[in-house]
Amino acid sequence: MSDSMPEKIILDCDPGHDDAVAMLLAHGSPAIELLAVTTVMGNQTLEKVTRNALSVARVIGMDAVPIARGAHRPLVRTIETAPDIHGESGLDGPVLPEPVVELDPRHAVDLIIDTVMSHPPKTVSLVPTGALTNIALAVRKEPRLAERVKQVVLMGGGVHVGNWSAVAEFNIIIDPEAAHIVFNEPWPLTMIGLDATHQALATDEVAARIAAVGTAPARFVGELLEFFAHSYKDAQGFDHPPVHDPCAVAFLIDPTLLRVVKAPLDVELTGGLTLGMTVADLRGPAPEGCTTQVALDIDNDRFWGLVVDALKRIGDVRV
Amino acid sequence: MSDSMPEKIILDCDPGHDDAVAMLLAHGSPAIELLAVTTVMGNQTLEKVTRNALSVARVIGMDAVPIARGAHRPLVRTIETAPDIHGESGLDGPVLPEPVVELDPRHAVDLIIDTVMSHPPKTVSLVPTGALTNIALAVRKEPRLAERVKQVVLMGGGVHVGNWSAVAEFNIIIDPEAAHIVFNEPWPLTMIGLDATHQALATDEVAARIAAVGTAPARFVGELLEFFAHSYKDAQGFDHPPVHDPCAVAFLIDPTLLRVVKAPLDVELTGGLTLGMTVADLRGPAPEGCTTQVALDIDNDRFWGLVVDALKRIGDVRV
Amino acid sequence: MSDSMPEKIILDCDPGHDDAVAMLLAHGSPAIELLAVTTVMGNQTLEKVTRNALSVARVIGMDAVPIARGAHRPLVRTIETAPDIHGESGLDGPVLPEPVVELDPRHAVDLIIDTVMSHPPKTVSLVPTGALTNIALAVRKEPRLAERVKQVVLMGGGVHVGNWSAVAEFNIIIDPEAAHIVFNEPWPLTMIGLDATHQALATDEVAARIAAVGTAPARFVGELLEFFAHSYKDAQGFDHPPVHDPCAVAFLIDPTLLRVVKAPLDVELTGGLTLGMTVADLRGPAPEGCTTQVALDIDNDRFWGLVVDALKRIGDVRV
Amino acid sequence: MSDSMPEKIILDCDPGHDDAVAMLLAHGSPAIELLAVTTVMGNQTLEKVTRNALSVARVIGMDAVPIARGAHRPLVRTIETAPDIHGESGLDGPVLPEPVVELDPRHAVDLIIDTVMSHPPKTVSLVPTGALTNIALAVRKEPRLAERVKQVVLMGGGVHVGNWSAVAEFNIIIDPEAAHIVFNEPWPLTMIGLDATHQALATDEVAARIAAVGTAPARFVGELLEFFAHSYKDAQGFDHPPVHDPCAVAFLIDPTLLRVVKAPLDVELTGGLTLGMTVADLRGPAPEGCTTQVALDIDNDRFWGLVVDALKRIGDVRV
Ligand SMILES: [Ca+2]
Ligand SMILES: [Ca+2]
Ligand SMILES: [Ca+2]
Ligand SMILES: [Ca+2]
Repeated sequence: MSDSMPEKIILDCDPGHDDAVAMLLAHGSPAIELLAVTTVMGNQTLEKVTRNALSVARVIGMDAVPIARGAHRPLVRTIETAPDIHGESGLDGPVLPEPVVELDPRHAVDLIIDTVMSHPPKTVSLVPTGALTNIALAVRKEPRLAERVKQVVLMGGGVHVGNWSAVAEFNIIIDPEAAHIVFNEPWPLTMIGLDATHQALATDEVAARIAAVGTAPARFVGELLEFFAHSYKDAQGFDHPPVHDPCAVAFLIDPTLLRVVKAPLDVELTGGLTLGMTVADLRGPAPEGCTTQVALDIDNDRFWGLVVDALKRIGDVRV
Repeated sequence: MSDSMPEKIILDCDPGHDDAVAMLLAHGSPAIELLAVTTVMGNQTLEKVTRNALSVARVIGMDAVPIARGAHRPLVRTIETAPDIHGESGLDGPVLPEPVVELDPRHAVDLIIDTVMSHPPKTVSLVPTGALTNIALAVRKEPRLAERVKQVVLMGGGVHVGNWSAVAEFNIIIDPEAAHIVFNEPWPLTMIGLDATHQALATDEVAARIAAVGTAPARFVGELLEFFAHSYKDAQGFDHPPVHDPCAVAFLIDPTLLRVVKAPLDVELTGGLTLGMTVADLRGPAPEGCTTQVALDIDNDRFWGLVVDALKRIGDVRV
Repeated sequence: MSDSMPEKIILDCDPGHDDAVAMLLAHGSPAIELLAVTTVMGNQTLEKVTRNALSVARVIGMDAVPIARGAHRPLVRTIETAPDIHGESGLDGPVLPEPVVELDPRHAVDLIIDTVMSHPPKTVSLVPTGALTNIALAVRKEPRLAERVKQVVLMGGGVHVGNWSAVAEFNIIIDPEAAHIVFNEPWPLTMIGLDATHQALATDEVAARIAAVGTAPARFVGELLEFFAHSYKDAQGFDHPPVHDPCAVAFLIDPTLLRVVKAPLDVELTGGLTLGMTVADLRGPAPEGCTTQVALDIDNDRFWGLVVDALKRIGDVRV
Repeated sequence: MSDSMPEKIILDCDPGHDDAVAMLLAHGSPAIELLAVTTVMGNQTLEKVTRNALSVARVIGMDAVPIARGAHRPLVRTIETAPDIHGESGLDGPVLPEPVVELDPRHAVDLIIDTVMSHPPKTVSLVPTGALTNIALAVRKEPRLAERVKQVVLMGGGVHVGNWSAVAEFNIIIDPEAAHIVFNEPWPLTMIGLDATHQALATDEVAARIAAVGTAPARFVGELLEFFAHSYKDAQGFDHPPVHDPCAVAFLIDPTLLRVVKAPLDVELTGGLTLGMTVADLRGPAPEGCTTQVALDIDNDRFWGLVVDALKRIGDVRV
C-alpha cells in the first residue's frame, strides 16, 4: 500500500452484494478517493440496482459522492439479470433503508466523462464491477477518455473458468459487445476475473472478523454475506461465497495483493459455446506494448483485512 | 404530398455527395422542418464529414439549423471509409467554401436526445443517411426515444442486393451492431435501401434539369453529381450514379413516391459471408404488429422533381 | 434438346413428392441415361425415403437402375425432416406399392464413386435433389471426383428467397456444411434454386395434362401432386405447389428451359439469421474462371411438357 | 496395467514425430493389439504422412499391420500443415528408409469400418492422433460405429491452453467440424489434450534412457526427438519437446498414468477467437450419463517407461 496520494476512482457497479462491499471498501479506504458511483443494469434492473446504490450509500454514510444512473440494458443483447444470486431486490438479505441522498441529474455516461475530463490526464481510474455498458458508451461518446483515463481495473471474465457458461462470466456475457469495446481501447486494463475472485471467499473466519467490528455497517455486511452464502451454495455449489467486486478496488489499494500477468486479452463475440469468454493468450511472454493484464491469484487473508479496515474507518453510522 | 404541417426531422448524415443532396432537399422543401443536422463518420472521417456539413450549410444558405458532431468510429468494428466513392475530402468535386456557421457545442447524441425530448411525443422523425452509430448511442443513452420518436426513415441496407459485399450495403456493414440496435427498437422504421435507391439515378436528363435552375447551389449540385458519376462508374460500373440519401428525405415529403412493403427486418451480425445484411422476411404477409417496412421501388422522375423544387426555393446563395 | 448422346446422370434424392417426379422424368426421358439413384435423409428419415425410392421405381417400371442408401443424418447438424410438406411417409397421398427391386449393397457414397470412376472423365453428371451429404462425403472420400464429374446440377438454395428461413432453402439449410463442400469444389455447378422452382407450379392445367396421359404412373403423379398442393397451401400459402426437383433434371434434358447466370456462389455457415443461405454475388459480371451458375427463371409450360413426355414414354406399368 | 487381454486398437495418425512414437508404443507394447494404422493429412500432406507411416513401420519391424490412406483434406476448411514443427517431410531428422510394406487397398474409412464391424461389439478402440477427419467420415458412412466401437481415446484439444491459437490445439482446429462430429457421438471418449501432453516432455534424462536401449529403432527415436526439440524450442519456446501422441496409446496401456475427469466436452465451430477450442464444462460434477472425459495430468516418468519398454521389446530391426 502506497503512502502517496490516494487513487481517484469512479466505481461503476450494479449492487449487488459484492458491489455493496466494493462501495464500502472504496468509501472507507484511505488509499482511495471515490469521485463518483455510477450504476448499470446487471444483477438486477437499473431501477433496482440504482436504488440499492443509494441505500448502501446511506448505510455506510457516503453522502458526498455523486451517484448517477446509467444504462438500462446491454448494447446489443437483451437484458439478463441474476435473481438467483442476488434475490428479487438485487440486494436481498438485510433491510435496505430509504435513500437520503439524491441522484446526480446527469446520465452515468456524462458523469464519467465530466469527472475524467475535469481532472488532469492519467489521474482518474475506472473501476467497473458490472456489465461494461456505461464505460463502452462513455468512450464512444468521448473518445479522448481512452488517453485521459489512468487505467481500467475491472471485475469480470476469467481465463480458466466461467460462471454463466462453461467459459464465460456474468459481467462479460451479459454485454459482450460492451466488453469488447472496453478491452480493445488503448488504456491500461487489469482484469480481475474469476481466477482470482473465486479465491476471495467469505469464510466463517471472515464472517467472524467482520462481526467483530461491531458496527451497524458491519452488521449490514454480515447480513449481505449470509444471504450471498446461501445463494452461491444453492446456485453454484460453493461452500463459501466468492466476493468478486471488492477485489478490483483492493487492487487499486494494494496491487501486491494479487498476482497479475500481462497478456493479450479479448472478448469472444460470435462463439456458439464461448460467447462472452475473455480470451487470454498465455502461450508466452506478452508482446511489447501489451496494455492488458489479468489477475490469477489473490491473498484472501489480506484482502479481507482491507475490508475490515474500511469498516472500522467508516465506524458506526446512524441510519 | 400533404398540405398539413411540415414533417419535423433530424438528419443524421456523413456528407458525402448524396448526403449533401439530402441536406438541400430537407432544407429547401416546404414539407420538411429540419430541426438539426448531426454527423457521423462513414464516407470519410468524422472531422471531414463534419466540415463538409458546415460547408454545405453555407452553400445552401442553411444558417439557422444546429449542426453537431457525433460518433468518430463504429460501436464495435474498426472504422472503414469510402474514398473511392466520395474522394479524399468526402465531398470531392466542387470547391468547398469555408464554413461560416459554428458547430453546436453538444455531442450529436445529446442534440438528438434534447431535440426529440423537447418536442411533443411522436412529432420528430429521425432520418439517418449514414452509419447508425449516433442513433444507436442516443437510444441506449435515452431509452425513452424509442417511444418518443415519430419514426425512423433511414437510407441503408437492401433486400436483394449489396454494394459493400455481395449482400450488404455500406451504411449497415460499417456498423452492423448499431444497425442491429436501431432495427430492433419498437419505433416505426422504414428502410430505404438499395432496391429503391439504385433506381434513383442521376441521368443526363436529371443533370440538365438541375443545371437549368441556374443558381450557385444548383451548380454545386451539378459538380457533386459529376464527380459522383465518375466514382460510381469506376468503382461499381454504374452508367449513372445512384443518389441514395435524399430518397429517405423524399419519403417524408411524399411517401407515395416509393413502393414500400411491411416485413420483419433484422441485421445479420455473425455471418461469414453475410455480415451486415439486412434480412427481410418476405415469404408472406407481415405478422400483426410488425413495425418495419422496406422500400422496393421509387419514382425517379418525381423524386428529382422534389430536388429541383428544393433548389428553386433555396434560390441563389452568395457564398 | 440435343440430338446427341443422352446425359449420364446419378440422381441423389430424398423422395419426397418432387423427387418422385424427378425420378420419373430421368427414367422416362430419352435425353437422360440414369446410371444410379442414391438416397439421403431429408424430406423424411433415410429408411423412409429409401423405401419410397424403391416404391417409386416399381410404379414407374424402373427395374434396372441400381439404388443405394446413403447418409442417415447431416454432417454436423442434427437431422430435421419435413413432414408438414411430405407427410409421415415422406410420400403421402398415393398408395405406395411394396418394393420389388433390391437395394444395391453398396453405400450411396461408394456407388457414386464407383459409377463416376468407371466411366470416362467428364461423362457423368451428379444431380442432387436433397441435402448434399452424400455428394460431400463422396468427394471427400474420393477427391478425384472433383475433376472426374462432368458437372453438378442441383436443386437447392435460392438467391432472393428462402423457404425454411427468410433467406435459406430446405436442402441447403439442413446440411449447410455439406453444401459448403459441394459449392466449393472446382466442378461446374448449376444451382437450380427457388428463384426458378417457385415458377415450376403444378397448376390445374398441369394436373389436367398429366391426367390426360391416362396411365397408372400418371395417376400416381396426379395423386402426389394433389397431396403436395394441400401441403404447400397449408404450410407456405401457395395456390399451386412448386415442384422443385425435376427442374434440375429438366436442365440436363434441355438447358434452354431455364435462364441461368454465371455468378460466384457460396453457402453461409455462421450467420445467426442467414445460416444455409446460398450467397450469389450478382453485382457485376462473374469473374474469369467462375465455375458456378444459378437459374433465375424457368419456362413452366415447356417444363411440364417434358414431364408429360416422360410419362407417355414410360407408358402403363402393372404393379 | 491389466494382465487381461490386450486392447485392440486402430491408430489413426499423421506421422509426425510424436505419431511415430505412438506407432512404436502401440506396436511394441504387449498390452496393445494394433489392428490397423490409418493416415490423415495434418502435420504434412496425406502423401507425405502416409509415406512416413510406411517408413516407420519398416524401422520398427511392423510388417503385419494393415496401413491405409485416408482423408487428404479437412471436411470444410482448407488444409493447413505444420512444417515449422515437423519439417518438410513431416518427419524430419532421421534418415527415412524406403517403405517395404504396401498400403492396404482400402480407403482408411473403409478399413476402420471393416475392422470394427468384423470384431465383436465393444472390443475395438479408436486412437486418433491427428485431425479427426477419417473418424468423422467413418461414423457418418457407418453410423453403427457409434455403438460398436469400445471407446475413442484421442490426442487433441486442451482445456486451459492452446498451441495453434490462444485456446485451440492443432489437431482440432485444422478440422473443427470433424472434431465436432467425433465429440458428439455417444461413444465413450477420452480427450488426451495439451493439459496432459505438455507434461510429457522428452527431457535430457528421457533421451538418455532411450539412447541406453542401444538399438536401431531407439537411435531413430533419438534422432526424431532431437529434431523435435529444436522445432519446439524455436516455434513455441519449449525447453524440452512435449511428445503428445503416444500419451493416447499410453492411456490404453495403463489408464492410471493419467489423471482424467469426466466432463461435458464440445468443439467450438463459430468463435472468432475460439474456433476449434475444446470446451469443457468443469463447473461441477459431470451430469449423469456424461460419456466424455479429459486428461489433466500425466506421470511423465512412468509414461516414458512404457516407451522404453516398447523399444526393448521391439529390439533391433535391420533395415
Ligand atoms: Ca457487480
Ligand atoms: Ca450517407
Ligand atoms: Ca428433394
Ligand atoms: Ca499427430
